[in-house]
Amino acid sequence: MLVGIGRAQDVIPGMHDNLLLHAGPPVTWARMAGPMKGAVVGALIFEGKAQGWDDAEALVNSGAIQFAPCHHHAAVGPMAGLISPSMMVYIVENQTHGNRAYSGMNEGRGRVLRMGAYSEEVITRMHWLNDVFAPVVDEAIRLSGGLDLRILLTQALHMGDDGHNRLQAASLLFLKSLDPMIVKAAPNCDVASDILKIIGENALAVLNPVMAACKTMADAGHNIAGSSIVTAMARNGTEFGIRVSGLGDRWFTAPASVVKALYFPGFTEQDANPDIGDSTITETAGIGGFAMAGAPAIVAFIGGSAKDAVRTTLDMYEITFAEHRYFSMPALDFRGTPTGIDIRKVVEKSMTPRVNTGVAHKDPGIGQVGAGIVVAPMSAFEDAFMAYAEEYGFAD
Amino acid sequence: MLVGIGRAQDVIPGMHDNLLLHAGPPVTWARMAGPMKGAVVGALIFEGKAQGWDDAEALVNSGAIQFAPCHHHAAVGPMAGLISPSMMVYIVENQTHGNRAYSGMNEGRGRVLRMGAYSEEVITRMHWLNDVFAPVVDEAIRLSGGLDLRILLTQALHMGDDGHNRLQAASLLFLKSLDPMIVKAAPNCDVASDILKIIGENALAVLNPVMAACKTMADAGHNIAGSSIVTAMARNGTEFGIRVSGLGDRWFTAPASVVKALYFPGFTEQDANPDIGDSTITETAGIGGFAMAGAPAIVAFIGGSAKDAVRTTLDMYEITFAEHRYFSMPALDFRGTPTGIDIRKVVEKSMTPRVNTGVAHKDPGIGQVGAGIVVAPMSAFEDAFMAYAEEYGFAD
Repeated sequence: MLVGIGRAQDVIPGMHDNLLLHAGPPVTWARMAGPMKGAVVGALIFEGKAQGWDDAEALVNSGAIQFAPCHHHAAVGPMAGLISPSMMVYIVENQTHGNRAYSGMNEGRGRVLRMGAYSEEVITRMHWLNDVFAPVVDEAIRLSGGLDLRILLTQALHMGDDGHNRLQAASLLFLKSLDPMIVKAAPNCDVASDILKIIGENALAVLNPVMAACKTMADAGHNIAGSSIVTAMARNGTEFGIRVSGLGDRWFTAPASVVKALYFPGFTEQDANPDIGDSTITETAGIGGFAMAGAPAIVAFIGGSAKDAVRTTLDMYEITFAEHRYFSMPALDFRGTPTGIDIRKVVEKSMTPRVNTGVAHKDPGIGQVGAGIVVAPMSAFEDAFMAYAEEYGFAD
Repeated sequence: MLVGIGRAQDVIPGMHDNLLLHAGPPVTWARMAGPMKGAVVGALIFEGKAQGWDDAEALVNSGAIQFAPCHHHAAVGPMAGLISPSMMVYIVENQTHGNRAYSGMNEGRGRVLRMGAYSEEVITRMHWLNDVFAPVVDEAIRLSGGLDLRILLTQALHMGDDGHNRLQAASLLFLKSLDPMIVKAAPNCDVASDILKIIGENALAVLNPVMAACKTMADAGHNIAGSSIVTAMARNGTEFGIRVSGLGDRWFTAPASVVKALYFPGFTEQDANPDIGDSTITETAGIGGFAMAGAPAIVAFIGGSAKDAVRTTLDMYEITFAEHRYFSMPALDFRGTPTGIDIRKVVEKSMTPRVNTGVAHKDPGIGQVGAGIVVAPMSAFEDAFMAYAEEYGFAD
């Protein structure tokens, strides 16, 4: 359930004044990818702690700023995934298991902080989202009694969405669920109209709450003794990493892969940063790349044919533990999506999860250059499998 | 393009004070099906010309009321299809061919006039739609510069809609296109909120404008000498009828079929009225039943399996002239929908169009009882084929 919006430092456990959260497994400034560095600079400008790149870098190098993965604080962020203390975040609650997760506002397309852009336009939009958009949408969520994101996803998967890069239907369902209350919550009609327009024109408007919902589902299955199910899969633009339910909070990492992508006009693979972002929490929860059989239109965005989309889903049944009880695909006669990546099956079948994802420019300040499919690196799963064997005494 | 909303008697050609338009080919009061009679009574109550059934029937029997098919006045209506002089109607313009078409407001589900219900609740809702909803939505359409329904349908067909009974995505696209302007056009926030809620909760909110859009497409191809393409296909609950482009304004009719349906709880085939409504204009234009391969989730509403949905579309290629240039189905690798029913192929292949449709109770005053698939009766196509052969000199 999406229950509201709050300020990161007020609601995220362990968040503090000098902490920045980022996507993927832990990473230092020195090893950070270009787009994540850009987003860090943008976040420090947004917080009023820096004026520009040099300022920000000096501050970071002074040791005054700490970094931690979103995943260490019950949060998730798309692409660079930056969450700074003043940012407003969606609050999603798993009412069955009692845990919560958090994710920032979605900025729309093009030059955006999450893709590493940090121009004045980007920062101005962030402030509008924080100061105007978030309070109204928070009030609308509360007036509506909360929004059931599992039902929303269930419907969206019957409307051609995969739940990760294709969220057109889910974003419209989000809009229609909240718009009568947004009108009541807004200070005036012009603000209401602006907010409805911003949501309606953003085909990924609901990505962040969806990711937080997936995080609450995955966290509910974390730390189960003996479980070989993956509960987090995330990339920081430098490394890809997973966590496994029965192996606690350890990360198993490998260098981030290059995405096989369709590039926007004017860009090529030379411009692409390797795989980045926490949005693979969707695949971890059984949607996204795993549900593409129900979302054939996505191939227009990421490449390939409708058959490839079906094949990806069918392959993922080979490496997962269950078929989802709520998320289903009409095109496969309402078969549940492949859910619960099992590291034992990944190693046995020699097949890693396939993920669809956006691609950021490798240099800071530019933004998205394409979208495509990426195959997770095998060595992270092999390492996890060896650790699992050791932990549970199958080491020989 | 949806260009606005106006009062039927002001905008529909030939509409006058004592005329009621109805779905399907011509029909007299004596031969009218129950739900259409119920809708006539409701329309006369709505117009202030009757208090109830007896009143209305006496007025009709006095000869003071004339009936004509919607199709004779560039209009279309779902189910009973009643349009009375004071009703507000959507105005859709084919800007390539210069013709217009009209369709009433959509009332939502359950007990509604178009299904033959005429209780006080139904009439009150009709007045609210006419007096509150329509002026605001008209203003919103005009403020937005008109709404391109072809683009809207193109997108919706990539979001699991068939364009006839499944219009969830299209209705949400309609909402998001207009909602910023609805907020500006509404007299106050409460009215805006009510209108957004009514549209957002009605999965068929956009059915009537979509039908009018299909009518403008079909009419653009009407009256082409030598053409054997069907330009209207409609049912009045008693008879099914078609018109053919090269055969002018003649109707070729046959008794309306019984729908093979999934019934709502408490109802069975015994309760069902035969096939009724102008909504088959969607199949005439190449969507609806013809586009079901892209809308497998519809089988949860109308019965059958995902494969049946694909098979229906593939079959329809056998009896159509072209693949649509704009309407495509991602699941068939973006193949265009089968478009332009050719009476020569229907007769040659001995296969009539398949249509998905709602089912009304056979008695007036009750409403919808289910939804399903119906196969058009062959004899109407055979009669049209014989007339075509005669008209164009192939009679032997």
